[in-house]
Amino acid sequence: MNFNPQISNLPIYEAGKPIELVIREFGIEPQNVVKLASNENPLGCSPLVLEAMKESIKSANLYPDDSYYELKESLANLYNVNSKNIVIGSGSDQVIEFIMHAKLNPNTAMLSAGVTFAMYEIYAKHIGAKIYKTKSSQHSLDEIKELYNAHKKEIKVVFLCLPNNPLGECLDASDVYEFISSIDSDTLVVIDGAYMEFAKFKDSRKTINPSDIIKLSNSIYLGTFSKAYGLGGMRVGYGIANEQIITAISKLRAPFNITTPSLAAAIAAVKDQDFIVKTLQNNFKEMSIYEQFAKDNDIEFIPSYTNFITFIFDNSKDSTQICDKLLRQGIILRNLRSYGLNAIRITIGTNEQNIKVLEALKKEI
Amino acid sequence: MNFNPQISNLPIYEAGKPIELVIREFGIEPQNVVKLASNENPLGCSPLVLEAMKESIKSANLYPDDSYYELKESLANLYNVNSKNIVIGSGSDQVIEFIMHAKLNPNTAMLSAGVTFAMYEIYAKHIGAKIYKTKSSQHSLDEIKELYNAHKKEIKVVFLCLPNNPLGECLDASDVYEFISSIDSDTLVVIDGAYMEFAKFKDSRKTINPSDIIKLSNSIYLGTFSKAYGLGGMRVGYGIANEQIITAISKLRAPFNITTPSLAAAIAAVKDQDFIVKTLQNNFKEMSIYEQFAKDNDIEFIPSYTNFITFIFDNSKDSTQICDKLLRQGIILRNLRSYGLNAIRITIGTNEQNIKVLEALKKEI
Repeated sequence: MNFNPQISNLPIYEAGKPIELVIREFGIEPQNVVKLASNENPLGCSPLVLEAMKESIKSANLYPDDSYYELKESLANLYNVNSKNIVIGSGSDQVIEFIMHAKLNPNTAMLSAGVTFAMYEIYAKHIGAKIYKTKSSQHSLDEIKELYNAHKKEIKVVFLCLPNNPLGECLDASDVYEFISSIDSDTLVVIDGAYMEFAKFKDSRKTINPSDIIKLSNSIYLGTFSKAYGLGGMRVGYGIANEQIITAISKLRAPFNITTPSLAAAIAAVKDQDFIVKTLQNNFKEMSIYEQFAKDNDIEFIPSYTNFITFIFDNSKDSTQICDKLLRQGIILRNLRSYGLNAIRITIGTNEQNIKVLEALKKEI
Repeated sequence: MNFNPQISNLPIYEAGKPIELVIREFGIEPQNVVKLASNENPLGCSPLVLEAMKESIKSANLYPDDSYYELKESLANLYNVNSKNIVIGSGSDQVIEFIMHAKLNPNTAMLSAGVTFAMYEIYAKHIGAKIYKTKSSQHSLDEIKELYNAHKKEIKVVFLCLPNNPLGECLDASDVYEFISSIDSDTLVVIDGAYMEFAKFKDSRKTINPSDIIKLSNSIYLGTFSKAYGLGGMRVGYGIANEQIITAISKLRAPFNITTPSLAAAIAAVKDQDFIVKTLQNNFKEMSIYEQFAKDNDIEFIPSYTNFITFIFDNSKDSTQICDKLLRQGIILRNLRSYGLNAIRITIGTNEQNIKVLEALKKEI
């Protein structure tokens, strides 16, 4: 059986190793596993959300209200936009997929920072579109502009991951708005705000407002319930843009693309903004422990606007070896070797988890 | 902003109207709404599944084990195949999407019965592939073969919906196997078994065994947890085929394509086969009430191998008018006018629901 030519060269996304795998492979008791590899919320989710899900699972036999009426209304209120400016995805990943299928084809290209969210590239490869990335790992608008200008006719989607996963840096909003205005009206600039709640809490200059993005003809904002809202396992994200863009990409949304409990969870999650504040406060308080550790141990780190921190090692250390040794002790971190970096990304956990990780790390470096 | 040319002509799938919409639009109390429009299980789901979900929502912040190890092992045992023969989708819909993107492009075509599951056509249109359908609404293997032979070079995917949604008929397995053997080795025959549990319970001659399908180089079996298992709202389906096919289409699966509670629900659901038997017994016992009603009222119906029954009206009646009138009373059925038929598809409900629907229908016909 033959398949479309691009299929044979497709990479497979390397997800953070699940707890179940560590239990199976190394015989470690579940309660002793520390997983800080997938930027999940260590505080869980809001108790209001838990209640909503508990009620909702009784209707697991019923498809969700596919209009997502109430969720869209909640998000519209939260961001001061209209329901018609919103599309719901199974994670913001799926909104990326819609965008790629709506804008790209084998004669076009996407552009991103050198090291950024791996799914951009993977979805582009699904389609057989060309991929341009800057030489710099972190976002450099100068380099992005240079590449854009050199391949203007081809590039139909530009990704800005703000703040950037898996590195943690974040561009200033004023620079971003200026950048978008310099890009052709037929090229879509995607502002991936999966971790935006963290960035704007740390520094208001990073704040990208979806209510500003909807005024533009060539930009879309992506948000998710997976990170600050603590619902990684529920797969709900969204795109916010002007109505023309939303109408087009919504046509690629299959019905019932999120589950019934996911819909209930997301609606409840928007209502509990106190939980978000608690999450953000814990995150940056705990992050300072990692920063101090890095300074004390001469480890380079990227100042982070997210819920993770990236340690970059010099040649005397090997991120793969370190991750493997920790894995055998039940500590799951994300090795960034597959991104071409001798670095480890660590999700900020609870105080107890963070202390355990740093004690183990201390012994291996 | 321009989009890929096929986007502008894309239809949007018309889902069954959700209960929430009827409550909003007609001010009907939730407990008075009867929704028999989306072939959801009227008995809910297994109590074991409910327990598993209740436990699992506590981990809503954690992504699922993306290897789906335990679920694949359960399905492999159930169907006497290997884990490597299985791909998991967010509903079997998503497996259809993988297949289309792996096999089709604008120079190829798909083939199906005249009236069948609408998503086949919608996904083909996403890609800009050509669509061939038989003149007959119901599956006619003679007509399918004839169309296939006439457009052999183009047709790369053939759908057999067994039993067929939204009509209910089902081909015999022996005819299906013979048909597959007559199809080129580079054309994938998709056996959509979303309602297969119902068909094989009613008549064992309809049974397609995934363990037979994996021996073939050009066929894939699709199953779902949405129907007999009562998990429509959880979005879990699967494809079973030989390893070469599964390896190829799995490359199009994004990580974490089902939710954490969905994974727990599906694993538990496989364990409670007694619930399936209860579902199937209730279904066909209640279906006989609809058959008797149709006979008593001179309404044509298609003998059904599924959890729904399709009433076909003569010109003296109008399915759209009937559905609209019932909708205003809080009864949601599926009008098949958008499929070009003067017909209504009714999901078999609980005894109480069925009596209410037939009493209301009696007044409107």
